[in-house]
Amino acid sequence: MTVSITDVARAAGVSASTVSRALRGRPGVSDEVRAQIAAVAAQLGYTASRSASSLASGRTFTIGVVVPYVGRWFFGTVLDAAEKVFSAAGYDVLLYNLGSPETRKRFFTKLPVRKRVDAVLSLLIPDEEESAALRSLGVPLATTVGGARPGFTVVGIDDRAGTESAVRHLVNLGHRRIGMISGSSGPLHWTTPVERRQAYLDVLADAGIEHDPALEADGDYTVEGGERAMTELLAASRPPTAVFAQSDEMAMGALRALRRHRLRVPDDVSVVGFDDHELADVVGLTTVAQPVAGQGAEAARLLLRQLDEPDADAGQPGQVQMPIRLVLRETTAPPSPRGPQ
Amino acid sequence: MTVSITDVARAAGVSASTVSRALRGRPGVSDEVRAQIAAVAAQLGYTASRSASSLASGRTFTIGVVVPYVGRWFFGTVLDAAEKVFSAAGYDVLLYNLGSPETRKRFFTKLPVRKRVDAVLSLLIPDEEESAALRSLGVPLATTVGGARPGFTVVGIDDRAGTESAVRHLVNLGHRRIGMISGSSGPLHWTTPVERRQAYLDVLADAGIEHDPALEADGDYTVEGGERAMTELLAASRPPTAVFAQSDEMAMGALRALRRHRLRVPDDVSVVGFDDHELADVVGLTTVAQPVAGQGAEAARLLLRQLDEPDADAGQPGQVQMPIRLVLRETTAPPSPRGPQ
Repeated sequence: MTVSITDVARAAGVSASTVSRALRGRPGVSDEVRAQIAAVAAQLGYTASRSASSLASGRTFTIGVVVPYVGRWFFGTVLDAAEKVFSAAGYDVLLYNLGSPETRKRFFTKLPVRKRVDAVLSLLIPDEEESAALRSLGVPLATTVGGARPGFTVVGIDDRAGTESAVRHLVNLGHRRIGMISGSSGPLHWTTPVERRQAYLDVLADAGIEHDPALEADGDYTVEGGERAMTELLAASRPPTAVFAQSDEMAMGALRALRRHRLRVPDDVSVVGFDDHELADVVGLTTVAQPVAGQGAEAARLLLRQLDEPDADAGQPGQVQMPIRLVLRETTAPPSPRGPQ
Repeated sequence: MTVSITDVARAAGVSASTVSRALRGRPGVSDEVRAQIAAVAAQLGYTASRSASSLASGRTFTIGVVVPYVGRWFFGTVLDAAEKVFSAAGYDVLLYNLGSPETRKRFFTKLPVRKRVDAVLSLLIPDEEESAALRSLGVPLATTVGGARPGFTVVGIDDRAGTESAVRHLVNLGHRRIGMISGSSGPLHWTTPVERRQAYLDVLADAGIEHDPALEADGDYTVEGGERAMTELLAASRPPTAVFAQSDEMAMGALRALRRHRLRVPDDVSVVGFDDHELADVVGLTTVAQPVAGQGAEAARLLLRQLDEPDADAGQPGQVQMPIRLVLRETTAPPSPRGPQ
């Protein structure tokens, strides 16, 4: 006779779902109880079968993850951290990279994740229609980008506060001609560039600095784009003495452009980025640090909690804000009187 | 009455498969013929329906891509480039990130791609059993890592030649104590670290330099690992005056360690990497450039060709070697007599 999960539960004096959680290494069970249950299961000769527990629960033990640009550091890092959490809990990840508009349209039209995943982590910002499509799946949803959205757990940062600390740092150093490299052509419906631009404008206004549109350039959130944008800013009739780049990759592109123009950083031009990319330290980049892997891991944990305790969070997905901080390194200094003014 | 693809083919005087290829923007059709077919189709009121053409061909128009570490620059870049080629040809990508041994085992046991994909691009190196499992799918297979493998199209580089150029460059500059940062704990069955190590040993032997095991350290193919490895090498009784890192990310970690030890590059220690990472230029890293995105795009193109002309390549998948070159920047110079000898 086959030993069932109920037999183990009865013998161990716990619920079947606790046995299931314990044997699949999922959270919510103390190490002690887990060991006890494992001992009882071994004694009875019970082996947790994934397909059996899948049949019983109706679960696929698969999480769908939707990404706009898998090749970019930010998304790769978030994804990697989330995947580690899912994998440790016994879940597989099905990844959909929706960089092109056609792929994205096909995905949201066909919704190939239907009945194939227990939850969806979206690293792109769905519009209203796309959000509704995801909600129609009837599974927990989370995202690490963009603001509040009905039905989604959101893990993010305070983009305005982060930007303000970066731009204020430049103002405090004495800079008046402060450029910004942004990424207007980022993923659709992405609020980040908008929030960061507003914060940049607010700090300038606060400091009594008139906004000069010639000091803004689009860096496309890539290294190459940052290089192009910096080159553009340097060609202005009165180039900036300091630049805030909305991502470290664009800031590093800016550093490359400055090198090519034989301008010294920070002597001639100060640069501050956003992210604390794993290589920011190598180039000595002053930046706003955000926990990138941390956001992916936290979003994954919250999704798993919703799966394990559907009642606890049902209908009230939360919004989690992770900490940020300005990291001072070597690319920022007071403006030089000999700078490119 | 619905106009069928056969009607269009008859009217245009071409085969149905040519019509299909032309209207789905797939290669193998000249622009002229494509325009002609599109005109005929428009005249007849024919619209290519994906599900119809899918039914007709038995295709899923989905490519399975298997990755070991989606969060690492190399794999993200290969993947991104491949995805662009697939997407342009009307194919979706299903990504499987198999970083943990458990996830990997589950994937190859259950083979969730069966009947769901038209081809598989593997960015991890399957062992014999895993290769056999993939071959059992009966679809075209390709990889961009590791050596020849029955049934796979392989797009890669000459790891030995690349390493030789890097290490010879250090020898030619006059270095005798040349360290190496490698990654033995990389993906399973990965031949790259082995090939590169052998080339390093060969060049040393060729130059009459005795191999010192204390000058080798494991950098795990990450920035952090490279930093740890360099720190280890600096603690040797006779530290190296130059270091070859098997990847740019490890080389950048080495630069960080050297910075922390207040050692100057290249005055005190020379560093050469491998890859030409998009940020190598920013830090002035001398490196062996390989076309990373190029390998992903080429592998994708070869898979699509096998799908479009199954007879042309059936049973004889090829091996493509992409060009490499040593890029001299600012992290290498002759050893200084005041260096850490």
